Amino acid sequence: MAHKYVHGYSARESERLADQAQTLTDLLHHDTHYPAGSRVLEAGCGIGAQTVILAKNSPEAQITSLDISEDSLARAEQMALKEGLTNVTFRQGDIFHLPFEPASFDHIFVCFVLEHLIEPRRALEQLRPLLKEGGTLTVIEGDHGSTFFHPENPDASRAVDCLVQLQQQAGGNALIGRQLYPLVAGAGFRDVSVSPRMVYVDASRPGLVEGFTKLTFTAMVEGVTEEVHRQGLMSRDAWERGIAGLCRTTEPDGVFCYTFFKATARK
Amino acid sequence: MAHKYVHGYSARESERLADQAQTLTDLLHHDTHYPAGSRVLEAGCGIGAQTVILAKNSPEAQITSLDISEDSLARAEQMALKEGLTNVTFRQGDIFHLPFEPASFDHIFVCFVLEHLIEPRRALEQLRPLLKEGGTLTVIEGDHGSTFFHPENPDASRAVDCLVQLQQQAGGNALIGRQLYPLVAGAGFRDVSVSPRMVYVDASRPGLVEGFTKLTFTAMVEGVTEEVHRQGLMSRDAWERGIAGLCRTTEPDGVFCYTFFKATARK
Repeated sequence: MAHKYVHGYSARESERLADQAQTLTDLLHHDTHYPAGSRVLEAGCGIGAQTVILAKNSPEAQITSLDISEDSLARAEQMALKEGLTNVTFRQGDIFHLPFEPASFDHIFVCFVLEHLIEPRRALEQLRPLLKEGGTLTVIEGDHGSTFFHPENPDASRAVDCLVQLQQQAGGNALIGRQLYPLVAGAGFRDVSVSPRMVYVDASRPGLVEGFTKLTFTAMVEGVTEEVHRQGLMSRDAWERGIAGLCRTTEPDGVFCYTFFKATARK
Repeated sequence: MAHKYVHGYSARESERLADQAQTLTDLLHHDTHYPAGSRVLEAGCGIGAQTVILAKNSPEAQITSLDISEDSLARAEQMALKEGLTNVTFRQGDIFHLPFEPASFDHIFVCFVLEHLIEPRRALEQLRPLLKEGGTLTVIEGDHGSTFFHPENPDASRAVDCLVQLQQQAGGNALIGRQLYPLVAGAGFRDVSVSPRMVYVDASRPGLVEGFTKLTFTAMVEGVTEEVHRQGLMSRDAWERGIAGLCRTTEPDGVFCYTFFKATARK
Protein backbone atom coordinates (compact mmCIF):
# COMPACT_ATOMS: atom_id res chain seq x y z
CA MET A 1 0.00 0.00 0.00
CA ALA A 2 1.63 3.21 -1.16
CA HIS A 3 1.29 6.18 1.16
CA LYS A 4 2.48 9.75 1.33
CA TYR A 5 5.27 10.18 3.87
CA VAL A 6 4.52 13.55 5.49
CA HIS A 7 8.16 14.38 6.25
CA GLY A 8 9.27 13.80 2.63
CA TYR A 9 12.52 12.24 1.56
CA SER A 10 14.90 15.21 1.12
CA ALA A 11 18.58 15.22 2.10
CA ARG A 12 17.84 17.63 4.94
CA GLU A 13 15.17 15.29 6.22
CA SER A 14 17.67 12.42 6.22
CA GLU A 15 20.07 14.54 8.23
CA ARG A 16 17.27 15.42 10.67
CA LEU A 17 16.43 11.77 11.18
CA ALA A 18 20.08 10.94 11.81
CA ASP A 19 20.42 13.77 14.37
CA GLN A 20 17.25 12.68 16.09
CA ALA A 21 18.37 9.07 16.31
CA GLN A 22 21.68 10.10 17.87
CA THR A 23 20.16 12.29 20.58
CA LEU A 24 17.37 9.95 21.51
CA THR A 25 19.22 6.66 21.45
CA ASP A 26 19.56 6.27 25.19
CA LEU A 27 16.08 7.45 26.05
CA LEU A 28 14.31 5.17 23.60
CA HIS A 29 16.58 2.18 23.11
CA HIS A 30 18.57 1.57 26.29
CA ASP A 31 16.23 -1.24 27.36
CA THR A 32 16.01 -3.14 24.06
CA HIS A 33 18.56 -5.94 23.77
CA TYR A 34 17.84 -9.15 21.88
CA PRO A 35 19.66 -12.41 22.74
CA ALA A 36 22.31 -14.06 20.59
CA GLY A 37 20.83 -16.06 17.75
CA SER A 38 17.35 -14.58 18.05
CA ARG A 39 15.60 -13.58 14.84
CA VAL A 40 14.33 -10.00 14.86
CA LEU A 41 12.11 -8.24 12.34
CA GLU A 42 12.40 -4.46 12.12
CA ALA A 43 9.18 -3.54 10.34
CA GLY A 44 9.58 -0.18 8.57
CA CYS A 45 13.28 0.61 8.85
CA GLY A 46 13.22 3.74 6.68
CA ILE A 47 16.75 5.02 6.04
CA GLY A 48 18.12 2.83 8.82
CA ALA A 49 18.43 5.38 11.62
CA GLN A 50 17.02 2.93 14.18
CA THR A 51 18.53 -0.11 12.45
CA VAL A 52 22.04 0.96 13.38
CA ILE A 53 21.12 1.33 17.05
CA LEU A 54 19.18 -1.93 17.07
CA ALA A 55 22.02 -3.86 15.43
CA LYS A 56 24.66 -2.42 17.77
CA ASN A 57 22.58 -3.05 20.91
CA SER A 58 22.01 -6.68 19.88
CA PRO A 59 25.18 -7.57 17.95
CA GLU A 60 24.51 -11.32 18.02
CA ALA A 61 20.86 -11.19 17.00
CA GLN A 62 19.92 -11.71 13.34
CA ILE A 63 17.98 -8.67 12.21
CA THR A 64 15.77 -8.43 9.13
CA SER A 65 14.90 -4.83 8.29
CA LEU A 66 11.93 -4.27 6.01
CA ASP A 67 10.77 -1.12 4.27
CA ILE A 68 8.36 -0.30 1.49
CA SER A 69 10.61 2.34 -0.11
CA GLU A 70 13.47 1.14 -2.33
CA ASP A 71 15.12 4.57 -1.98
CA SER A 72 15.04 4.40 1.81
CA LEU A 73 16.36 0.84 1.74
CA ALA A 74 19.27 1.87 -0.49
CA ARG A 75 20.23 4.54 2.07
CA ALA A 76 19.75 2.13 4.94
CA GLU A 77 22.10 -0.35 3.23
CA GLN A 78 24.70 2.39 2.72
CA MET A 79 24.39 3.33 6.38
CA ALA A 80 24.78 -0.31 7.46
CA LEU A 81 27.87 -0.65 5.26
CA LYS A 82 29.38 2.55 6.65
CA GLU A 83 28.71 1.39 10.22
CA GLY A 84 30.13 -2.07 9.51
CA LEU A 85 26.94 -3.90 10.52
CA THR A 86 27.12 -7.61 9.81
CA ASN A 87 23.91 -8.83 11.44
CA VAL A 88 21.29 -7.05 9.32
CA THR A 89 19.53 -8.20 6.14
CA PHE A 90 17.44 -5.66 4.26
CA ARG A 91 14.26 -6.61 2.47
CA GLN A 92 11.76 -4.62 0.43
CA GLY A 93 8.15 -5.27 1.37
CA ASP A 94 4.77 -3.98 2.46
CA ILE A 95 3.78 -4.28 6.12
CA PHE A 96 0.29 -5.25 4.93
CA HIS A 97 1.56 -8.01 2.62
CA LEU A 98 4.47 -9.42 4.51
CA PRO A 99 6.87 -11.70 2.62
CA PHE A 100 7.51 -14.07 5.54
CA GLU A 101 6.25 -17.43 6.82
CA PRO A 102 4.27 -17.59 10.10
CA ALA A 103 6.40 -17.81 13.26
CA SER A 104 9.50 -16.61 11.42
CA PHE A 105 10.64 -14.28 14.19
CA ASP A 106 11.40 -14.26 17.93
CA HIS A 107 10.94 -10.51 18.17
CA ILE A 108 9.40 -7.68 16.17
CA PHE A 109 10.47 -4.06 16.45
CA VAL A 110 8.41 -1.15 15.04
CA CYS A 111 9.65 2.41 15.49
CA PHE A 112 8.15 5.63 14.06
CA VAL A 113 6.07 3.61 11.59
CA LEU A 114 2.50 3.28 12.91
CA GLU A 115 2.13 7.08 12.96
CA HIS A 116 2.22 7.01 9.14
CA LEU A 117 -0.31 4.23 8.58
CA ILE A 118 -4.03 4.55 7.87
CA GLU A 119 -4.63 1.24 9.67
CA PRO A 120 -2.06 0.89 12.44
CA ARG A 121 -4.04 -1.77 14.28
CA ARG A 122 -4.35 -3.90 11.18
CA ALA A 123 -0.57 -3.58 10.69
CA LEU A 124 -0.05 -5.01 14.19
CA GLU A 125 -2.57 -7.76 13.47
CA GLN A 126 -0.63 -8.64 10.29
CA LEU A 127 2.65 -8.73 12.17
CA ARG A 128 1.42 -10.92 15.02
CA PRO A 129 1.38 -14.27 13.14
CA LEU A 130 5.03 -13.75 12.17
CA LEU A 131 5.99 -14.04 15.84
CA LYS A 132 6.71 -17.34 17.52
CA GLU A 133 4.46 -18.11 20.50
CA GLY A 134 5.79 -16.03 23.43
CA GLY A 135 7.79 -13.75 21.12
CA THR A 136 7.88 -10.03 21.85
CA LEU A 137 6.66 -6.93 20.09
CA THR A 138 8.26 -3.53 20.76
CA VAL A 139 6.69 -0.35 19.40
CA ILE A 140 8.01 3.21 19.74
CA GLU A 141 6.04 6.27 18.63
CA GLY A 142 6.02 10.00 19.30
CA ASP A 143 2.98 12.15 20.11
CA HIS A 144 2.98 15.73 18.85
CA GLY A 145 0.08 16.58 21.16
CA SER A 146 2.38 15.96 24.11
CA THR A 147 4.41 19.04 23.15
CA PHE A 148 4.50 21.93 25.59
CA PHE A 149 7.05 24.59 26.32
CA HIS A 150 7.97 27.81 28.07
CA PRO A 151 7.44 30.59 27.26
CA GLU A 152 4.02 29.71 25.89
CA ASN A 153 3.36 30.90 22.35
CA PRO A 154 -0.03 30.44 20.66
CA ASP A 155 1.46 30.63 17.15
CA ALA A 156 4.02 27.97 18.02
CA SER A 157 1.21 25.75 19.32
CA ARG A 158 -0.75 26.34 16.12
CA ALA A 159 2.32 25.45 14.06
CA VAL A 160 2.55 22.12 15.90
CA ASP A 161 -1.18 21.60 15.27
CA CYS A 162 -0.53 22.12 11.54
CA LEU A 163 1.89 19.20 11.65
CA VAL A 164 -0.80 17.05 13.27
CA GLN A 165 -3.31 18.15 10.62
CA LEU A 166 -0.96 17.42 7.70
CA GLN A 167 -0.11 14.00 9.07
CA GLN A 168 -3.83 13.29 9.35
CA GLN A 169 -4.39 14.40 5.73
CA ALA A 170 -1.67 11.95 4.70
CA GLY A 171 -3.57 9.17 6.46
CA GLY A 172 -1.35 9.14 9.54
CA ASN A 173 -1.79 10.01 13.20
CA ALA A 174 0.68 12.31 14.97
CA LEU A 175 -1.08 11.64 18.30
CA ILE A 176 -0.56 7.89 18.16
CA GLY A 177 1.95 7.65 21.04
CA ARG A 178 -0.72 7.95 23.73
CA GLN A 179 -2.78 5.27 21.98
CA LEU A 180 -0.20 2.49 22.00
CA TYR A 181 -1.77 0.60 24.92
CA PRO A 182 -5.24 0.18 23.36
CA LEU A 183 -3.73 -0.35 19.89
CA VAL A 184 -1.36 -3.14 20.88
CA ALA A 185 -3.83 -4.77 23.28
CA GLY A 186 -6.57 -4.45 20.66
CA ALA A 187 -4.41 -6.25 18.08
CA GLY A 188 -4.40 -9.35 20.29
CA PHE A 189 -1.06 -9.10 22.08
CA ARG A 190 -0.81 -9.87 25.82
CA ASP A 191 1.26 -8.49 28.71
CA VAL A 192 1.14 -5.05 27.10
CA SER A 193 3.24 -2.53 28.99
CA VAL A 194 3.65 1.09 27.91
CA SER A 195 6.14 3.58 29.30
CA PRO A 196 6.31 7.27 28.43
CA ARG A 197 9.74 8.65 27.55
CA MET A 198 9.71 12.40 27.95
CA VAL A 199 12.40 14.49 26.35
CA TYR A 200 12.72 17.31 28.87
CA VAL A 201 14.95 20.16 27.70
CA ASP A 202 16.17 23.14 29.70
CA ALA A 203 19.34 25.25 29.54
CA SER A 204 21.25 22.79 31.74
CA ARG A 205 21.01 20.24 28.88
CA PRO A 206 22.64 22.03 25.90
CA GLY A 207 22.99 18.80 23.91
CA LEU A 208 19.21 18.40 23.89
CA VAL A 209 18.59 22.11 23.27
CA GLU A 210 20.60 21.73 20.06
CA GLY A 211 19.98 18.09 19.21
CA PHE A 212 16.32 17.88 20.05
CA THR A 213 14.54 21.25 20.32
CA LYS A 214 16.40 22.84 17.36
CA LEU A 215 17.64 20.07 15.08
CA THR A 216 14.86 17.57 15.60
CA PHE A 217 11.61 19.19 16.60
CA THR A 218 11.83 22.73 15.21
CA ALA A 219 13.47 21.40 12.04
CA MET A 220 10.60 18.95 11.63
CA VAL A 221 8.05 21.76 11.95
CA GLU A 222 10.00 23.95 9.52
CA GLY A 223 10.00 21.00 7.13
CA VAL A 224 6.29 21.50 6.40
CA THR A 225 6.50 25.28 5.84
CA GLU A 226 5.76 25.08 2.11
CA GLU A 227 2.81 22.76 2.54
CA VAL A 228 1.32 24.94 5.28
CA HIS A 229 1.56 27.96 2.99
CA ARG A 230 0.28 26.05 -0.03
CA GLN A 231 -2.85 25.09 1.93
CA GLY A 232 -3.04 28.44 3.76
CA LEU A 233 -3.24 26.74 7.17
CA MET A 234 -1.57 29.74 8.83
CA SER A 235 -0.60 33.18 7.57
CA ARG A 236 3.09 33.59 6.74
CA ASP A 237 3.49 36.05 9.60
CA ALA A 238 1.83 33.78 12.15
CA TRP A 239 3.90 30.84 10.93
CA GLU A 240 7.13 32.80 11.29
CA ARG A 241 6.11 33.92 14.78
CA GLY A 242 5.41 30.27 15.57
CA ILE A 243 8.84 29.11 14.41
CA ALA A 244 10.40 32.02 16.32
CA GLY A 245 8.39 30.94 19.37
CA LEU A 246 9.82 27.44 19.17
CA CYS A 247 13.35 28.87 18.83
CA ARG A 248 12.64 31.14 21.82
CA THR A 249 12.32 28.04 24.01
CA THR A 250 16.03 27.34 23.39
CA GLU A 251 17.10 30.49 25.25
CA PRO A 252 18.52 30.19 28.80
CA ASP A 253 15.11 30.58 30.48
CA GLY A 254 13.25 28.37 28.00
CA VAL A 255 11.96 24.83 28.48
CA PHE A 256 10.72 22.28 25.94
CA CYS A 257 8.90 18.98 26.57
CA TYR A 258 7.96 16.17 24.18
CA THR A 259 6.94 12.62 24.98
CA PHE A 260 7.59 9.40 23.11
CA PHE A 261 5.87 6.17 24.13
CA LYS A 262 7.35 2.70 24.11
CA ALA A 263 5.17 -0.40 24.25
CA THR A 264 6.28 -3.97 24.79
CA ALA A 265 4.04 -7.01 24.58
CA ARG A 266 4.02 -10.76 23.92
CA LYS A 267 2.25 -13.00 21.45
CA MET B 1 0.10 37.81 52.29
CA ALA B 2 -3.41 36.41 52.16
CA HIS B 3 -4.44 34.74 48.95
CA LYS B 4 -7.39 32.81 47.62
CA TYR B 5 -6.73 29.07 47.48
CA VAL B 6 -8.35 27.97 44.23
CA HIS B 7 -9.19 24.45 45.41
CA GLY B 8 -10.99 25.67 48.54
CA TYR B 9 -10.86 24.01 51.95
CA SER B 10 -13.85 21.63 51.94
CA ALA B 11 -13.87 18.15 53.49
CA ARG B 12 -14.04 16.57 50.04
CA GLU B 13 -11.03 18.60 48.98
CA SER B 14 -9.11 17.32 51.99
CA GLU B 15 -9.99 13.77 51.04
CA ARG B 16 -8.89 14.44 47.46
CA LEU B 17 -5.54 15.74 48.66
CA ALA B 18 -5.04 12.67 50.85
CA ASP B 19 -5.86 10.31 47.95
CA GLN B 20 -3.52 12.19 45.69
CA ALA B 21 -0.68 12.06 48.18
CA GLN B 22 -1.08 8.30 48.59
CA THR B 23 -1.03 7.49 44.88
CA LEU B 24 1.80 9.80 43.99
CA THR B 25 4.10 9.15 46.92
CA ASP B 26 6.53 6.91 45.07
CA LEU B 27 6.63 8.92 41.88
CA LEU B 28 7.30 12.24 43.58
CA HIS B 29 9.05 11.44 46.85
CA HIS B 30 11.08 8.24 46.43
CA ASP B 31 14.30 10.19 45.97
CA THR B 32 13.96 12.65 48.86
CA HIS B 33 15.64 11.44 52.06
CA TYR B 34 17.22 13.85 54.54
CA PRO B 35 20.03 12.70 56.88
CA ALA B 36 19.68 12.16 60.62
CA GLY B 37 19.87 15.39 62.57
CA SER B 38 19.40 17.64 59.55
CA ARG B 39 17.02 20.57 59.92
CA VAL B 40 14.37 20.71 57.20
CA LEU B 41 11.86 23.45 56.45
CA GLU B 42 8.66 22.43 54.69
CA ALA B 43 7.39 25.75 53.37
CA GLY B 44 3.63 25.60 52.83
CA CYS B 45 2.57 22.29 54.37
CA GLY B 46 -1.20 22.76 53.92
CA ILE B 47 -3.15 19.98 55.64
CA GLY B 48 0.00 17.88 55.97
CA ALA B 49 -0.47 15.48 53.06
CA GLN B 50 3.21 15.78 52.05
CA THR B 51 4.40 16.28 55.64
CA VAL B 52 3.54 12.70 56.54
CA ILE B 53 5.51 11.34 53.58
CA LEU B 54 8.44 13.66 54.24
CA ALA B 55 8.59 12.75 57.94
CA LYS B 56 8.38 9.01 57.28
CA ASN B 57 11.02 9.11 54.52
CA SER B 58 13.41 11.00 56.81
CA PRO B 59 12.52 9.76 60.30
CA GLU B 60 15.66 11.15 61.94
CA ALA B 61 15.53 14.61 60.35
CA GLN B 62 13.99 17.50 62.30
CA ILE B 63 11.20 18.92 60.17
CA THR B 64 9.58 22.32 60.62
CA SER B 65 6.35 22.61 58.64
CA LEU B 66 5.05 26.10 57.97
CA ASP B 67 1.70 27.23 56.61
CA ILE B 68 -0.19 30.51 56.43
CA SER B 69 -3.58 28.94 57.26
CA GLU B 70 -4.37 28.15 60.92
CA ASP B 71 -7.15 25.81 59.78
CA SER B 72 -4.82 23.82 57.55
CA LEU B 73 -2.23 23.68 60.31
CA ALA B 74 -4.77 22.33 62.78
CA ARG B 75 -5.59 19.53 60.33
CA ALA B 76 -1.93 18.90 59.64
CA GLU B 77 -1.30 18.57 63.40
CA GLN B 78 -4.19 16.11 63.73
CA MET B 79 -2.78 14.11 60.81
CA ALA B 80 0.70 14.10 62.38
CA LEU B 81 -0.77 12.91 65.69
CA LYS B 82 -2.77 10.19 63.98
CA GLU B 83 0.32 9.02 62.07
CA GLY B 84 2.45 9.11 65.20
CA LEU B 85 5.00 11.55 63.76
CA THR B 86 7.53 12.70 66.36
CA ASN B 87 9.96 14.65 64.17
CA VAL B 88 7.72 17.48 62.94
CA THR B 89 7.09 20.91 64.46
CA PHE B 90 4.28 23.01 62.99
CA ARG B 91 4.52 26.76 62.74
CA GLN B 92 2.13 29.39 61.42
CA GLY B 93 3.76 31.92 59.13
CA ASP B 94 3.89 33.70 55.79
CA ILE B 95 6.38 32.57 53.18
CA PHE B 96 7.02 36.24 52.39
CA HIS B 97 7.68 37.18 56.05
CA LEU B 98 9.45 34.14 57.37
CA PRO B 99 9.81 33.82 61.15
CA PHE B 100 13.31 32.27 61.07
CA GLU B 101 16.93 33.40 61.43
CA PRO B 102 19.24 33.21 58.39
CA ALA B 103 20.94 29.82 57.84
CA SER B 104 18.41 28.06 60.10
CA PHE B 105 17.98 25.05 57.81
CA ASP B 106 20.01 22.40 56.00
CA HIS B 107 17.23 21.72 53.52
CA ILE B 108 14.06 23.36 52.27
CA PHE B 109 11.14 21.47 50.73
CA VAL B 110 8.33 23.19 48.78
CA CYS B 111 5.54 21.08 47.28
CA PHE B 112 2.38 22.29 45.50
CA VAL B 113 2.88 25.81 46.88
CA LEU B 114 4.46 28.02 44.20
CA GLU B 115 1.52 27.36 41.87
CA HIS B 116 -0.66 29.40 44.27
CA LEU B 117 1.65 32.42 44.67
CA ILE B 118 1.56 35.70 42.77
CA GLU B 119 5.33 36.00 43.15
CA PRO B 120 6.82 32.50 43.16
CA ARG B 121 10.32 33.70 42.35
CA ARG B 122 10.27 36.17 45.23
CA ALA B 123 9.14 33.36 47.53
CA LEU B 124 12.23 31.35 46.51
CA GLU B 125 14.41 34.44 47.00
CA GLN B 126 12.97 34.85 50.51
CA LEU B 127 13.62 31.22 51.34
CA ARG B 128 17.22 31.17 50.11
CA PRO B 129 18.81 33.06 53.06
CA LEU B 130 17.26 30.53 55.47
CA LEU B 131 19.48 27.81 53.99
CA LYS B 132 22.98 27.13 55.21
CA GLU B 133 25.68 27.44 52.55
CA GLY B 134 25.49 24.28 50.41
CA GLY B 135 22.02 23.42 51.70
CA THR B 136 19.46 22.04 49.28
CA LEU B 137 16.15 23.22 47.91
CA THR B 138 13.56 20.75 46.59
CA VAL B 139 10.48 21.97 44.72
CA ILE B 140 7.63 19.87 43.33
CA GLU B 141 4.83 21.32 41.18
CA GLY B 142 2.24 20.08 38.71
CA ASP B 143 1.47 21.53 35.28
CA HIS B 144 -2.11 21.36 34.09
CA GLY B 145 -1.00 22.22 30.53
CA SER B 146 0.84 18.90 30.44
CA THR B 147 -2.50 17.06 30.49
CA PHE B 148 -3.42 14.96 27.49
CA PHE B 149 -5.51 11.87 27.06
CA HIS B 150 -7.22 9.40 24.77
CA PRO B 151 -9.84 9.60 23.42
CA GLU B 152 -9.39 13.30 22.76
CA ASN B 153 -12.29 15.48 23.85
CA PRO B 154 -12.36 19.22 23.14
CA ASP B 155 -14.77 19.91 26.04
CA ALA B 156 -12.55 18.03 28.46
CA SER B 157 -9.58 20.09 27.26
CA ARG B 158 -11.60 23.27 27.74
CA ALA B 159 -12.57 22.15 31.25
CA VAL B 160 -8.88 21.78 32.10
CA ASP B 161 -8.25 25.22 30.61
CA CYS B 162 -10.92 26.62 32.97
CA LEU B 163 -8.89 25.34 35.90
CA VAL B 164 -5.82 27.12 34.53
CA GLN B 165 -7.84 30.30 34.07
CA LEU B 166 -9.32 30.21 37.60
CA GLN B 167 -5.92 29.61 39.15
CA GLN B 168 -4.60 32.59 37.19
CA GLN B 169 -7.52 34.75 38.45
CA ALA B 170 -6.57 33.75 41.99
CA GLY B 171 -3.03 34.99 41.35
CA GLY B 172 -1.56 31.54 40.78
CA ASN B 173 -0.09 29.66 37.84
CA ALA B 174 -1.26 26.16 36.97
CA LEU B 175 1.46 25.89 34.30
CA ILE B 176 4.31 26.46 36.73
CA GLY B 177 5.77 22.93 36.60
CA ARG B 178 7.51 23.50 33.27
CA GLN B 179 8.94 26.78 34.59
CA LEU B 180 10.79 25.38 37.60
CA TYR B 181 14.23 25.49 35.99
CA PRO B 182 14.21 29.21 35.13
CA LEU B 183 12.38 30.03 38.39
CA VAL B 184 14.82 28.28 40.70
CA ALA B 185 17.91 29.34 38.72
CA GLY B 186 16.55 32.89 38.55
CA ALA B 187 16.16 33.01 42.33
CA GLY B 188 19.92 32.54 42.71
CA PHE B 189 20.23 28.82 43.43
CA ARG B 190 22.99 26.77 41.77
CA ASP B 191 23.23 23.18 40.46
CA VAL B 192 19.58 23.33 39.47
CA SER B 193 18.32 20.00 38.15
CA VAL B 194 14.74 19.39 37.07
CA SER B 195 13.15 16.04 36.29
CA PRO B 196 9.68 15.47 34.87
CA ARG B 197 7.52 12.88 36.64
CA MET B 198 4.77 11.79 34.33
CA VAL B 199 1.74 10.01 35.70
CA TYR B 200 0.89 7.69 32.82
CA VAL B 201 -2.40 5.87 33.25
CA ASP B 202 -3.83 3.06 31.12
CA ALA B 203 -6.10 0.10 31.89
CA SER B 204 -3.15 -2.03 33.03
CA ARG B 205 -2.75 0.34 36.02
CA PRO B 206 -6.15 0.24 37.77
CA GLY B 207 -4.77 1.86 40.94
CA LEU B 208 -3.87 4.96 38.97
CA VAL B 209 -7.11 4.91 36.96
CA GLU B 210 -8.97 5.13 40.26
CA GLY B 211 -6.47 7.01 42.42
CA PHE B 212 -5.24 9.51 39.90
CA THR B 213 -7.50 9.98 36.87
CA LYS B 214 -10.76 9.72 38.83
CA LEU B 215 -10.08 10.65 42.46
CA THR B 216 -7.34 13.18 41.91
CA PHE B 217 -7.54 14.85 38.53
CA THR B 218 -11.21 14.58 37.54
CA ALA B 219 -12.25 15.32 41.14
CA MET B 220 -10.08 18.45 41.08
CA VAL B 221 -11.72 19.63 37.86
CA GLU B 222 -15.19 18.86 39.25
CA GLY B 223 -14.22 20.89 42.31
CA VAL B 224 -14.47 24.15 40.34
CA THR B 225 -17.85 23.37 38.71
CA GLU B 226 -19.74 26.04 40.65
CA GLU B 227 -17.18 28.73 39.96
CA VAL B 228 -17.09 27.90 36.25
CA HIS B 229 -20.87 28.24 36.11
CA ARG B 230 -20.89 31.40 38.23
CA GLN B 231 -18.50 33.01 35.77
CA GLY B 232 -20.08 31.37 32.72
CA LEU B 233 -16.71 30.08 31.49
CA MET B 234 -18.42 27.10 29.80
CA SER B 235 -22.05 26.20 29.22
CA ARG B 236 -23.45 23.60 31.63
CA ASP B 237 -23.81 21.12 28.77
CA ALA B 238 -20.27 21.59 27.54
CA TRP B 239 -18.94 21.33 31.09
CA GLU B 240 -20.80 18.06 31.65
CA ARG B 241 -19.52 16.70 28.35
CA GLY B 242 -16.04 17.71 29.47
CA ILE B 243 -16.30 15.87 32.79
CA ALA B 244 -17.78 12.87 30.95
CA GLY B 245 -14.83 13.08 28.54
CA LEU B 246 -12.37 12.89 31.43
CA CYS B 247 -14.26 9.90 32.87
CA ARG B 248 -14.23 8.29 29.41
CA THR B 249 -10.43 8.09 29.62
CA THR B 250 -10.81 5.62 32.51
CA GLU B 251 -12.42 2.98 30.28
CA PRO B 252 -10.35 -0.03 29.13
CA ASP B 253 -9.16 1.68 25.92
CA GLY B 254 -8.53 5.07 27.57
CA VAL B 255 -5.23 6.71 28.47
CA PHE B 256 -4.46 9.71 30.68
CA CYS B 257 -1.18 11.61 31.07
CA TYR B 258 -0.17 14.35 33.50
CA THR B 259 3.30 15.59 34.38
CA PHE B 260 4.70 16.85 37.66
CA PHE B 261 8.13 18.45 37.82
CA LYS B 262 10.67 18.11 40.61
CA ALA B 263 13.56 20.54 40.96
CA THR B 264 16.56 20.22 43.24
CA ALA B 265 19.21 22.88 43.74
CA ARG B 266 21.85 24.16 46.18
CA LYS B 267 22.46 27.49 47.86
